[in-house]
Amino acid sequence: MALESEVIGALTRARAAAPRMALATTAEKNSALKNLAGAIRASAAKIIAANRKDLKRASDDGRTGAFVERLTLNSARIEAMAHSVEEVAALPDPVGGVIERSTRPNGLEISKVRVPLGVIAMIYESRPNVTIDAGALCFKAGNAAVLRGGKEALETNAFLANLIAAALKDGGLNPDAVTFISNVDREVIQIMKQQVELIDLIIPRGGKALKEALKGSPVPILPHFDGLCHTYVDRAADLKMAMEICVNAKCSRPSVCNSMETLVVHREIAEKFLPAFAARMKAAGVELRGDERTRKIVPEACAASDEDWDTEYLDLILSIKVVDSLDEAIAFIERHSSHLADAIVTADAEAARRFEREVDSATVYVNASTRFTDGFEFGFGAETGISTNRLHARGPMGLNELTTYKYVIAGNGQVRG
Amino acid sequence: MALESEVIGALTRARAAAPRMALATTAEKNSALKNLAGAIRASAAKIIAANRKDLKRASDDGRTGAFVERLTLNSARIEAMAHSVEEVAALPDPVGGVIERSTRPNGLEISKVRVPLGVIAMIYESRPNVTIDAGALCFKAGNAAVLRGGKEALETNAFLANLIAAALKDGGLNPDAVTFISNVDREVIQIMKQQVELIDLIIPRGGKALKEALKGSPVPILPHFDGLCHTYVDRAADLKMAMEICVNAKCSRPSVCNSMETLVVHREIAEKFLPAFAARMKAAGVELRGDERTRKIVPEACAASDEDWDTEYLDLILSIKVVDSLDEAIAFIERHSSHLADAIVTADAEAARRFEREVDSATVYVNASTRFTDGFEFGFGAETGISTNRLHARGPMGLNELTTYKYVIAGNGQVRG
Repeated sequence: MALESEVIGALTRARAAAPRMALATTAEKNSALKNLAGAIRASAAKIIAANRKDLKRASDDGRTGAFVERLTLNSARIEAMAHSVEEVAALPDPVGGVIERSTRPNGLEISKVRVPLGVIAMIYESRPNVTIDAGALCFKAGNAAVLRGGKEALETNAFLANLIAAALKDGGLNPDAVTFISNVDREVIQIMKQQVELIDLIIPRGGKALKEALKGSPVPILPHFDGLCHTYVDRAADLKMAMEICVNAKCSRPSVCNSMETLVVHREIAEKFLPAFAARMKAAGVELRGDERTRKIVPEACAASDEDWDTEYLDLILSIKVVDSLDEAIAFIERHSSHLADAIVTADAEAARRFEREVDSATVYVNASTRFTDGFEFGFGAETGISTNRLHARGPMGLNELTTYKYVIAGNGQVRG
Repeated sequence: MALESEVIGALTRARAAAPRMALATTAEKNSALKNLAGAIRASAAKIIAANRKDLKRASDDGRTGAFVERLTLNSARIEAMAHSVEEVAALPDPVGGVIERSTRPNGLEISKVRVPLGVIAMIYESRPNVTIDAGALCFKAGNAAVLRGGKEALETNAFLANLIAAALKDGGLNPDAVTFISNVDREVIQIMKQQVELIDLIIPRGGKALKEALKGSPVPILPHFDGLCHTYVDRAADLKMAMEICVNAKCSRPSVCNSMETLVVHREIAEKFLPAFAARMKAAGVELRGDERTRKIVPEACAASDEDWDTEYLDLILSIKVVDSLDEAIAFIERHSSHLADAIVTADAEAARRFEREVDSATVYVNASTRFTDGFEFGFGAETGISTNRLHARGPMGLNELTTYKYVIAGNGQVRG
């Protein structure tokens, strides 16, 4: 009960801050953002000190290199956070923007106007820059935010959240507009997901445990979950281009959701493409797992199990499938993709057109790497992450995706007949 | 278990029909719609015969006039259904429409393209035209639809659903793309709301019982629920205009969600406005319930209880509140509105601007009747209803609101640095 009142208390403060936040002017919000960027730079030493406590705990717990790497802040990363806040300040304010406007025959002027969503709860893991990025984006879009980071980054997150609260206060805004929940009890999420009156949207960024914890949530969820991405090398592919795209999609950052997990190859070019590609993968330290036809061409690949086609490795592992046709490639991708990002490499315009239409993923690429699925790369200036939802927002999430709209109708006495 | 397999069987058929439906051409969809309009006209006598069975049951059950009125089909209403289907055919196909396009500095061309949502389940009550309107809209937007109408209109709905299936089949499309569930067991809804793999979105149109039945649904819901609408007559209102707007908002169709339930009046004009308005209400047979200040001016009004301010009458009843200021009016509306439609009548541009910004409702009117909150009046050509949600779509729902989007990215070998 103590935990429940603690969580509900925090959410109630955020809800109370939301109406004023929704009406904050662009100048007020940008001034708070500039305060925040300054405070991040001025507090670099303290941020690093807080981060060291998290790193010590991670090391005591025997955490691995990739985990520690994601958790670590250094002066370059702190500068990057400050810079990202300035970039959010420089972005146009979405609130009040007119999406569409029409005048009806009866003279009514109908404007569809962007407005904040309300209270957004971000539940995230590990990387502490999410505290700054998500906090800054949510309040630039006029929302109140509730941030609930992972326990592994607690010290760093709590310090950064205090900087946000101070920046809001210095800017004349309510510090509760970005409320940080520092209690790391797992039960916190169970309490949060029941608060339909206090939270308008939960944005979870994390792995399977978080997905499981939020199942059946009465509060709407905009999941940022799985990335099981494919690249299909068509028979009409430029094989040199295919090579660079596949190497980039697999190797440039294997631990992130937009990296390639499965390569699909048309049988007509498999014998020409796979041996050289396998050599590049070997050089990059990538373990290969293939179907029977792949293994005939690449004997060093081990046999892929049924499970492999549905596994997001997030690691230097790649599964390879040889197909007879574009149809088979599309059907295979539709069955196994997490629908985040899938690519075709082809010089055949008709094959490209079919792939674009028939692969039902948030981002569908023709002749480019799936690694571009990212708010910065899309030109959104910043992102809370990448939505794997079909409703409300799909793919990279920027400021606009953190808003809803209302219709404002101006009349001069119209009544309905 | 028999019921569960029946419902899951129907949903599975709809899910299987969805991918082909998503790729249906505009010509295919419009041809099916034209078949449907023709079939509705050709079957008018049979539709009326089916409808008579529903009307007989309603009469046996001792249903009231308004209920029977909503349920009844006659030749004019059947012609209106056929015409509405033709209007949906005439609307532009949303699928494939490019919402935004940009070219990134690296040459990637990013297009945000409208695509169908997938499988939409409509759960609705009483009016049988919803079967035709929702079915036609869902499949024009490339979705598969599952229709679950109320038991009171079962015969009519089932007959109309058969016409849709036949029209799809004649048009070379899969009749399962609009699947009707004829089992009226209440448990059907409980089974449906658990099928996160089979349904992408539930659109419920109905009253409190339906709202209650869908609470905590794991399948996302786009509710079409309460309409507790206000009109605020400001001290700077043109009182003649205010009179016509208020009479229209209350009396033109009191049983629908966009009609006015509460009038809010600035004290400075209350004595001038209310007596004449009360006389008009009396003439129209409207019962008045007021706060103390209202009752000093309109003694025939009975006392409004706390409950009145939160009651959607959907009837010839109106509650009236006198306020001291625009601030009080906005705060009162924010507290009691269902946030569907609220209006201000004022000649003061600054008051209008504040009301527009600060009243957080799906549709906010200045100097017009709330009765315009309707897809047809907004120029959408047709509607599934009016969303009372903040996420995905808010207010009147037309074809665009039944879609989502994906990003299609065209490159020429780009890889991420």
